[in-house]
Amino acid sequence: MTPSKKPHPCQAYCSLKKRNRNIGRLSAIAEIISRDFLTTMPEGAYENRLDQISYLHRRIHDDIVCPDSQAWLEEAQEHLATHPGLWDEWDTANLIETVKRYKNHAILDPDMLEESARIANEGRRVHSLCLKNNDWEMAQAHLERVAVHVRKLAKLKAKSRNSATLYEALIQDYSPGVSLEKLWKWFNHIDTELRILLPQVIERQKMRTPIVSLAGRYDPEAQMWLNRSLLELFGFDFDRGGLYETEHSPVEGGTPDDTRLVIKNVDPRDFMNSMKSALHEGGHGLYIQGLPRKGGSGYQPVSHDLGTTMHESQALLVEMVIGRTPEFFEFLAPRLEGLFHTVRDPSLTAGNLHRRKTLVKPTLDRKGADELTYFFHIFLRFKIECDLIEGKMEVADIPAFWTEWMHDHLGVMPQNHTEGVMQDVHWFVGKFGYFQAYTLGHMVAAQLFDTMQQDIPDLYSRIRNGDFKPITKWLNRHIHSKGSIQPWDELLKDVTGSEPSPDFLISHIENRYLGG
Amino acid sequence: MTPSKKPHPCQAYCSLKKRNRNIGRLSAIAEIISRDFLTTMPEGAYENRLDQISYLHRRIHDDIVCPDSQAWLEEAQEHLATHPGLWDEWDTANLIETVKRYKNHAILDPDMLEESARIANEGRRVHSLCLKNNDWEMAQAHLERVAVHVRKLAKLKAKSRNSATLYEALIQDYSPGVSLEKLWKWFNHIDTELRILLPQVIERQKMRTPIVSLAGRYDPEAQMWLNRSLLELFGFDFDRGGLYETEHSPVEGGTPDDTRLVIKNVDPRDFMNSMKSALHEGGHGLYIQGLPRKGGSGYQPVSHDLGTTMHESQALLVEMVIGRTPEFFEFLAPRLEGLFHTVRDPSLTAGNLHRRKTLVKPTLDRKGADELTYFFHIFLRFKIECDLIEGKMEVADIPAFWTEWMHDHLGVMPQNHTEGVMQDVHWFVGKFGYFQAYTLGHMVAAQLFDTMQQDIPDLYSRIRNGDFKPITKWLNRHIHSKGSIQPWDELLKDVTGSEPSPDFLISHIENRYLGG
Repeated sequence: MTPSKKPHPCQAYCSLKKRNRNIGRLSAIAEIISRDFLTTMPEGAYENRLDQISYLHRRIHDDIVCPDSQAWLEEAQEHLATHPGLWDEWDTANLIETVKRYKNHAILDPDMLEESARIANEGRRVHSLCLKNNDWEMAQAHLERVAVHVRKLAKLKAKSRNSATLYEALIQDYSPGVSLEKLWKWFNHIDTELRILLPQVIERQKMRTPIVSLAGRYDPEAQMWLNRSLLELFGFDFDRGGLYETEHSPVEGGTPDDTRLVIKNVDPRDFMNSMKSALHEGGHGLYIQGLPRKGGSGYQPVSHDLGTTMHESQALLVEMVIGRTPEFFEFLAPRLEGLFHTVRDPSLTAGNLHRRKTLVKPTLDRKGADELTYFFHIFLRFKIECDLIEGKMEVADIPAFWTEWMHDHLGVMPQNHTEGVMQDVHWFVGKFGYFQAYTLGHMVAAQLFDTMQQDIPDLYSRIRNGDFKPITKWLNRHIHSKGSIQPWDELLKDVTGSEPSPDFLISHIENRYLGG
Repeated sequence: MTPSKKPHPCQAYCSLKKRNRNIGRLSAIAEIISRDFLTTMPEGAYENRLDQISYLHRRIHDDIVCPDSQAWLEEAQEHLATHPGLWDEWDTANLIETVKRYKNHAILDPDMLEESARIANEGRRVHSLCLKNNDWEMAQAHLERVAVHVRKLAKLKAKSRNSATLYEALIQDYSPGVSLEKLWKWFNHIDTELRILLPQVIERQKMRTPIVSLAGRYDPEAQMWLNRSLLELFGFDFDRGGLYETEHSPVEGGTPDDTRLVIKNVDPRDFMNSMKSALHEGGHGLYIQGLPRKGGSGYQPVSHDLGTTMHESQALLVEMVIGRTPEFFEFLAPRLEGLFHTVRDPSLTAGNLHRRKTLVKPTLDRKGADELTYFFHIFLRFKIECDLIEGKMEVADIPAFWTEWMHDHLGVMPQNHTEGVMQDVHWFVGKFGYFQAYTLGHMVAAQLFDTMQQDIPDLYSRIRNGDFKPITKWLNRHIHSKGSIQPWDELLKDVTGSEPSPDFLISHIENRYLGG
């Protein structure tokens, strides 16, 4: 779906498209400068760069809500209503997305927006410091500032979005169109099912061949070669991007022309950690690179991604769904021997790697969690956010709640805040409402994979041969290249034939961990 | 000299300062994003990033020439005229610089400005390609486009600046306040004197101990350690900057808080090449880091550097004037043995290194030229620019003129365009009028060094001990921290007691190459 080459008959809409292009140019700059800020900038530039980035976001905001934009929007909507025949699907969707963006910004005053940008960029640094010193006091002070700001935002958003609750309003930023009621329904269903599955899986895995621990030290450069090669096999375009290592936090994002993925320090003891991150960020990167970008369409709102749920689905599909199939490890194993200069290493057999990556075992750590217990980590955060935003819980109450919940539900207890409540960067950067999108993304990934298996009949033998490009091609055709032409749930229904449903995820887990 | 903490009584001026701050924020972003563009950006982002940077410059331009700026400027100038007692030196100079910037921009239409930004960023890439393929045809086409644009700019500038000629108008961008008449007078004088000195120096150097060629291969990482350590000894603040290597062109610039210097690929056969670049860029970097930056003063025009002449003087003072003293090599030599794991290497003695770096010998290459013949390279370019801008020469005529001039004046002949007319990036990026600033900078460096020797009596023994910080401290006190509080020639007179004069440069060369 690409824009028509002819100028559109509605003059106001043409003006909007031009403005969109300029906003897109500044937004791309903001994206690149933020990555620099988070990865390679010298420490001493911290305060000023933070201020510069916030200011740039303010200018972008001003351009979005500029009074002539409002006038053009009204005129264009009027034109669409009176001359629907002159509007094709692309332009119609583009106008709808432009209106949405305008409304999302119009409710914010520029000071709040600057504070959001500051928190988003500053929060990562604060998070690093808190982790380094296991400093809950510093974390609490920061999170309280964030909570005040986010509640204020939620109030404005709830009003403009007619949301049932404050928290529901925040969720719209990540999973547009999803009601809190629906989320609770899905999550309670998954919770019920996975609680039944968990002990069965653990019991069954006791009978498996024991896992051989990784023996060696794995040269970080060799690991990065492996990670880059895997992404290349998936069709990631290194002419328009790259994969880098950083001491700081990994960075998602970029633009379709400049998708420099950043993963955190490579662990010399376990190559599977950086591989996991590379596959995850790679899934995001493939989505970004596959978005429409030709002929200036990239700067139009209709060419943007479909939000966090769809984005996470792309990352989890590559990392967890594809990247943990036995066939994936069959492809990987023999190549590892050559790469790491080791032969007949029992820890590097396809079977052992697969057992290692599919081991289900409750742990404290969300990022390192297995595919089954991952959900419980999300559910905990979802509950906390829900209460915190509605004012039923305060930041100071989180650690005790967290510890008790982990003990009661997963039977593990964090020994300190670094292992517990402080592990994730999201709240530090103001992302309340984000976590649910991981589980929704996992649901979407499983649902897409179900259809993909039908569409690509020799899928598993292709994976076994490292022939991953048909996967990306399929995703590109059905998801990436569509931009925001439809809402994510409608697109999912068109592609898979079903409404979004947790049943695909539950079946996927049941098949993978209890099947065969 | 710092701004007063009290709000200024002229409201319009307060508004200007606020606008200046916002312009400074966007300019800092443009600076950082341009370095990314020139160094680490993936190829595939080229077209779009070029477009984004040009657009950002357009926005900065729009902010500068915005109608309310004009009204504020008029009001503030009126206030200064009627209440001079309420304006201190800092605010007065800041207003003058703000007016200057406004006038420089007001004559440009935004399309021309975008074209300048495109040429500035695109030209480096074109230059690399032309060099790689020794492609004069491509170079000529590009330079013709640049010449058309630059002549157009020169016409506008000449009119607004009341310049005697088009070329004089361009020179103001790099060496403000210098008339073409004065430049010709200085350059002809230097030309006469150096032509007399050159054969004498060559004759005398025949009697020196022969130079021992560098023997080894020098580990690039060890070279970068050396380069960074030298800059650290000069007081370069690595918390607010760094020194990096790139495959692409080196990049000058940055902001006082983020001065990431970039030098071109380290040559494993000759560590003195990268050391030379590091010292040169380091001199620029020390100037940038030493500019006023506290309390938001960094974003005000009065806190900017004094232009190219002063900037190059700082680079050449560190690289050529200090970095080629016998004492510098006495400090360096024993450390090189440890660094490069070689003892009693006759090529690494202080004497041999000094002889190597002070060898006067006409060559084809400006960047690699010795301190004496360097001037002739500049003079050639100056003559060509002068005729080209005035329309007395066309781009197509340059190679023949160049070759003949090199043969007649230096007795060397380029064998191809890469060795000849295409060697410099300046014209490719639109910098016509820049080269003269190297010689002016060299003049200023020699003049400053003359005074510095009187102010720091144990200067040479300090250099011998690697105690370079007093040099930077002196430069900081007299030059860096002054920003643009005075024009460069007035400041130079205040610091050295003399008008800018070529005599210091001539004496410096006479002393170094024929004295003692």
